Amino acid sequence: MSSSVATRRAASQGRIADFNQTVILNAIRRSPDGVSRVELAAATGLSAQAVTNIVRQLLASGLIAEGRRAPIARGKPRTMLNLNPDGQYAIGVHLDPAVITYVILNLVGETLAHASRPTPADPDPELTTREIVAQIEELITETGVSRGKIVGVGMAAPGPIDVDRGVLVDPPNLSGWQSVPLRDAVRDAVDLPVLLDKDVTAAASAEKWQGGGGNFLFFYLGTGVGAGLVLNDEVFRGKTHNSGQIGNMIVSNDGLPCSCGYTGCLGEGSHPRRLVQHGLAVGALDDDVDLDDRLQVEAALVQLADNALTGRAEAIGVMDEMVRGILKGCEDITLLLDLDRIVFGGPHWRTLSPFFTEERFSELYRRHALQSIQPITVSGTRIGEDVGAVGAASLVLDHTFSTNPAVLLAG
Amino acid sequence: MSSSVATRRAASQGRIADFNQTVILNAIRRSPDGVSRVELAAATGLSAQAVTNIVRQLLASGLIAEGRRAPIARGKPRTMLNLNPDGQYAIGVHLDPAVITYVILNLVGETLAHASRPTPADPDPELTTREIVAQIEELITETGVSRGKIVGVGMAAPGPIDVDRGVLVDPPNLSGWQSVPLRDAVRDAVDLPVLLDKDVTAAASAEKWQGGGGNFLFFYLGTGVGAGLVLNDEVFRGKTHNSGQIGNMIVSNDGLPCSCGYTGCLGEGSHPRRLVQHGLAVGALDDDVDLDDRLQVEAALVQLADNALTGRAEAIGVMDEMVRGILKGCEDITLLLDLDRIVFGGPHWRTLSPFFTEERFSELYRRHALQSIQPITVSGTRIGEDVGAVGAASLVLDHTFSTNPAVLLAG
Repeated sequence: MSSSVATRRAASQGRIADFNQTVILNAIRRSPDGVSRVELAAATGLSAQAVTNIVRQLLASGLIAEGRRAPIARGKPRTMLNLNPDGQYAIGVHLDPAVITYVILNLVGETLAHASRPTPADPDPELTTREIVAQIEELITETGVSRGKIVGVGMAAPGPIDVDRGVLVDPPNLSGWQSVPLRDAVRDAVDLPVLLDKDVTAAASAEKWQGGGGNFLFFYLGTGVGAGLVLNDEVFRGKTHNSGQIGNMIVSNDGLPCSCGYTGCLGEGSHPRRLVQHGLAVGALDDDVDLDDRLQVEAALVQLADNALTGRAEAIGVMDEMVRGILKGCEDITLLLDLDRIVFGGPHWRTLSPFFTEERFSELYRRHALQSIQPITVSGTRIGEDVGAVGAASLVLDHTFSTNPAVLLAG
Repeated sequence: MSSSVATRRAASQGRIADFNQTVILNAIRRSPDGVSRVELAAATGLSAQAVTNIVRQLLASGLIAEGRRAPIARGKPRTMLNLNPDGQYAIGVHLDPAVITYVILNLVGETLAHASRPTPADPDPELTTREIVAQIEELITETGVSRGKIVGVGMAAPGPIDVDRGVLVDPPNLSGWQSVPLRDAVRDAVDLPVLLDKDVTAAASAEKWQGGGGNFLFFYLGTGVGAGLVLNDEVFRGKTHNSGQIGNMIVSNDGLPCSCGYTGCLGEGSHPRRLVQHGLAVGALDDDVDLDDRLQVEAALVQLADNALTGRAEAIGVMDEMVRGILKGCEDITLLLDLDRIVFGGPHWRTLSPFFTEERFSELYRRHALQSIQPITVSGTRIGEDVGAVGAASLVLDHTFSTNPAVLLAG
């Protein structure tokens, strides 16, 4: 019994040391202008000696660096401490049904390089996995970062996923990808730790890194729509990491019939394929489109948006109906969860954003039942089209900044 | 500077002492068969001396008691420690538009006494507040508990609420209660600390206390419907404590028109008033009902349920449509948040529960897109009609068991 107590106590002390190191590292991270050891002790309540020891370890590991010396009223000037941007790197890969995006981030979340390639139309996960691996290697070579400083590769993919096994389960818009062990295949090939999480979760994580926490919905517009959630300053994933399925919500009384049996479903009203189909039906597009050809659909969606922007009434009608449905979904999610903001993004956000006008937003504000207590704000993501890949990489960096990261980095 | 550092460090040490005491108290709480000091040290990683000191303080405060002595292989038998059920009490009050319910709980969450009274039909908050105060005093007298051991009074009320000011903002089903400072009025009258939270949040808290955490939806059936949420083992409240507004969700393609402009809204399809109105329209009820008279509506709802149970087709139709709408809402919330269970309860659950049949639940399972990864379970609350009041009292007890309770107990 007593040896077990001793072991547990030692383990507990190890956890406390990790915890204190993380506290210090985050205090430094939150001080972009630098912070001194004395200020760290004051801010954390740790003893001067403990701070000195932890800072020595962090300097030795290269995660932080000493910067300028700040003069003080009397005595030695204090040396300011900063994160060392080149202390660690993380790679992010976003596998979208239309495009695969790659980024490499440094420790302060800056994108050093990015690349994007169309997702192979042929549903061949093995071939695609080989392409992903080759592109990761190219990114490492191109940036010249030291492989030993890469914490790992974060992969974002459409749900549902089996996060424990690192497997795509049965993504509706990626045929051929049923039960593909993507995480471990990439890990074995690149010999770096790899994690897998949902695309909407990664996007929400990127937005949280760059734009702060709070309680917000990241409304993701891709081949499917989805909801990334940050609740109480934390990325929310649900029991199995599959939160954010919203295509089933009914958001219109006169929408399109859906395979689920209802009409007016959010997913049906906002998927590119159905928008194009709708556009063809009402004469908002001139040329015929093979709806089973993803590239044709993508091009037709851009054409549909152009037609609406140049004033073609039928195209404007299709876009208006899409926006109204999506904002009704946002309203329902925001009221359910008492959120304070909505951020739009994802692969199709650039094409569709012109139709999310201030006029439409003010309708949302007017309808919003909590507006008097909790005004909501709406914006597009500042991160742009790399948001999924940046988010995937940020999930890797969470392993540096958190004592208890939510996703296993399988190495 | 150095004095400020010293103050912060002392404050930090105070927080650590509080934290350790809470850790020990919760370890004792989680061991209904008792736990020894040695086991507490092993389980928490705290030193034997620290455990001894904290236990001494907890014994002195009456929160725990020494129980049986457990023999061990050699040496002195160990004294087991338990929560002292009579160490503290909490009062819970649930202000529902139809009924006000009162409970008094002991420290282990057992209900010592309860009472319920119809909510005065006359919208007079001052009169109602006096009634609430009188009923609280009666409960204290009746149970004979020592006033000094009552931690406080928890009040659950329909949203929206202003939790910081302890005010009902503009509850749609409680006319006359706009901006009523309920919390402070009760506090001044009973001279005990009082907190105010939303009814659905209180119900979710009660279910978490009794049935465990996880990720679940408490679907609340009252004069309005609402969603109580427990996410990652914690009661979720949103930014302003007003999460759970779901009456706006569209859950049917052929439902009733709603004042919001859409038809088929969850609230419209499940409020007692609209169910009775629907019943009258389709001939499921014989006698006319004054829809503005709440007591008549309540009675007619019971009659409507009886008519359905005795096989009257029109009444069965009304109930079926209500259940289908509610389960569609549950499906959408469950998929958005990746929950593992749904618990039904609230003032009207007893009347409506017979229509939530296994057949309807299996439809939900069949439709549930995450069922293969995340099977959901559905049940009625085990706490019964006191769930709101029990939950309100449990929010008070959270102040004993948490270092950082979510709601201010204004005293």
